[in-house]
Amino acid sequence: MGQFYRVAILGATGAVGTELLELLESRHFPLADLKLLASARSAGTTLKFRGEKLTVEAVNAQSFDGVDIVLASAGGSISKAWAKTAIAAGAVMIDNSSAFRMDSKVPLIVPEVNPQEAANHQGLIANPNCTTILMSVAVYPLHRVQPIKRIVASTYQSASGAGARAMEEVKTQSQAILNGQTPKPEIFPYPLAFNLFPHNSPLNEQGYCEEEMKMVNETRKILGASDLRITATCVRVPVLRAHSESINLEFESPFDVAKAREILSKAPGVKLVDDWQANYFPMPIDASGKDDILVGRIRQDISNPNGLELWLCGDQIRKGAALNAIQIAELLVEKNLLKPQIAAIV
Amino acid sequence: MGQFYRVAILGATGAVGTELLELLESRHFPLADLKLLASARSAGTTLKFRGEKLTVEAVNAQSFDGVDIVLASAGGSISKAWAKTAIAAGAVMIDNSSAFRMDSKVPLIVPEVNPQEAANHQGLIANPNCTTILMSVAVYPLHRVQPIKRIVASTYQSASGAGARAMEEVKTQSQAILNGQTPKPEIFPYPLAFNLFPHNSPLNEQGYCEEEMKMVNETRKILGASDLRITATCVRVPVLRAHSESINLEFESPFDVAKAREILSKAPGVKLVDDWQANYFPMPIDASGKDDILVGRIRQDISNPNGLELWLCGDQIRKGAALNAIQIAELLVEKNLLKPQIAAIV
Repeated sequence: MGQFYRVAILGATGAVGTELLELLESRHFPLADLKLLASARSAGTTLKFRGEKLTVEAVNAQSFDGVDIVLASAGGSISKAWAKTAIAAGAVMIDNSSAFRMDSKVPLIVPEVNPQEAANHQGLIANPNCTTILMSVAVYPLHRVQPIKRIVASTYQSASGAGARAMEEVKTQSQAILNGQTPKPEIFPYPLAFNLFPHNSPLNEQGYCEEEMKMVNETRKILGASDLRITATCVRVPVLRAHSESINLEFESPFDVAKAREILSKAPGVKLVDDWQANYFPMPIDASGKDDILVGRIRQDISNPNGLELWLCGDQIRKGAALNAIQIAELLVEKNLLKPQIAAIV
Repeated sequence: MGQFYRVAILGATGAVGTELLELLESRHFPLADLKLLASARSAGTTLKFRGEKLTVEAVNAQSFDGVDIVLASAGGSISKAWAKTAIAAGAVMIDNSSAFRMDSKVPLIVPEVNPQEAANHQGLIANPNCTTILMSVAVYPLHRVQPIKRIVASTYQSASGAGARAMEEVKTQSQAILNGQTPKPEIFPYPLAFNLFPHNSPLNEQGYCEEEMKMVNETRKILGASDLRITATCVRVPVLRAHSESINLEFESPFDVAKAREILSKAPGVKLVDDWQANYFPMPIDASGKDDILVGRIRQDISNPNGLELWLCGDQIRKGAALNAIQIAELLVEKNLLKPQIAAIV
């Protein structure tokens, strides 16, 4: 009846960890065992899974013994600290942090785009940044028909990208402002309730922030298009968990807009929400909790005969992080790309 | 001691009307008389001005007798209904609606950009759309040094663009959601609290909404650049009164980024907020209630050697509407462009 796998979640108590747990359950991942790992601070916490209470354990050198798949979502330094141990123990780590994404030995995978890269893993597969995943799923179906030459993107990123506490902060901040108070921001550097600000990740010398450079570099790696020209402006907005992106695409020659719409209506991981009659297009509230990237406002760019405009929304925690990681795990299982220690349970 | 003018505000009770009143007071506009006009529904309302209570009158055929300047902010149909009467009575109407903006006989003015157009008025001057004013103030100082060839803009528009009731709706909606309710939107077609959506103005056949086409057509008219290629994606966000814009500019040849920053640091109506050290850039909360357009994140576009990226925030009610109208009125006074009925009061 197929095989079952021993999975560990590293960083089980965060926003993405919680979602990973939910997805392993709802997608009926073939689990032989599920281990919840976190820092010593979170150890002892219990989380519900398939009707049972699982206790979070503090990660240690023995944590990965016998584990087939590690889903890591505890941040770059934790992933760096434990990757070697996990791989040495025979596991494949699917890492949600940015630590290894641009490492040429580490495949960076969006299953709808470059699943073939999974075969090249050496024990580690990187899960791309949320904004990159969302954009890749939406533009790849067009790119494979006619290569994209340039992308100008502006993002509208929800609080969830900064974690569960950031989502909570937007709510408490909103309530305080509605009460006439002036709350002091704690998680974000500036108030986000009824406000927005350019993404506050560190800036490089050219003035691009890390989040923007992730979109640039990761998208190139995923699409296998090292000469693709990309510029991005990333902005944090007071939305809870779905990101939106305004994307301007330039091709070598015109891309028929009806054909683009037709292609995207059939693309895996994409749901076309493009109702001109009702003026109804993708919105974060509709994307929240959904697997698909909602894509709409597909237009011929009136400023460029070779251009297309499109607009998308996608759940940042789900497809932007946890779901993509689970889909990579499913891909490893389906293509039989795990290490031979796999627990064969009939 | 100079001259004083009789001013009427048509649409005095709206968000922009209220701001016009505040600005006439705070800027010490040389008023001989101020008349507040509105629909019959709002007649009788009293509004405070210079410590006195003024009563709003229902607009009628005699309302404009003896008036020098009409500041109209009651919507396109009201402006259309009363423009002829006001002009025939000898007034100059500064119209905040979109009714006459693209009329070749009507100057469309941003005082920092094309003040010279005021001399061509025939009794009517149009105040541009908010998004257009904000963008024009920020890009014109660069355009006059080296003509812009193409603009790709994405907006982050506050609730105020849809009026005072829309601002209120965002607050009550936020409160309801925080209370665990699912409020039904009334002013906007979709919930805006903790959400966002593409601007819901009517779409043309190419899929561009009216708001986007205003940015395209009005910007061309104001800059006197009919061949300037512009594309825009307009988005409503849960912010109360300041709009933000992510703007990608393309020139014929490279525009030195240090020079761009230098030019914008001295540009009228612009305040440079471009603190890379502190990762501090324009935000709606900082732009709210301010006259200047805050501009920052001025970067060399890494996807185009002839490109610049910039980010701006500006108060939609203030410079995006009321302040620009008052500045046009001040321009008429300064350049002596009002009709000869001017009341000369020493």
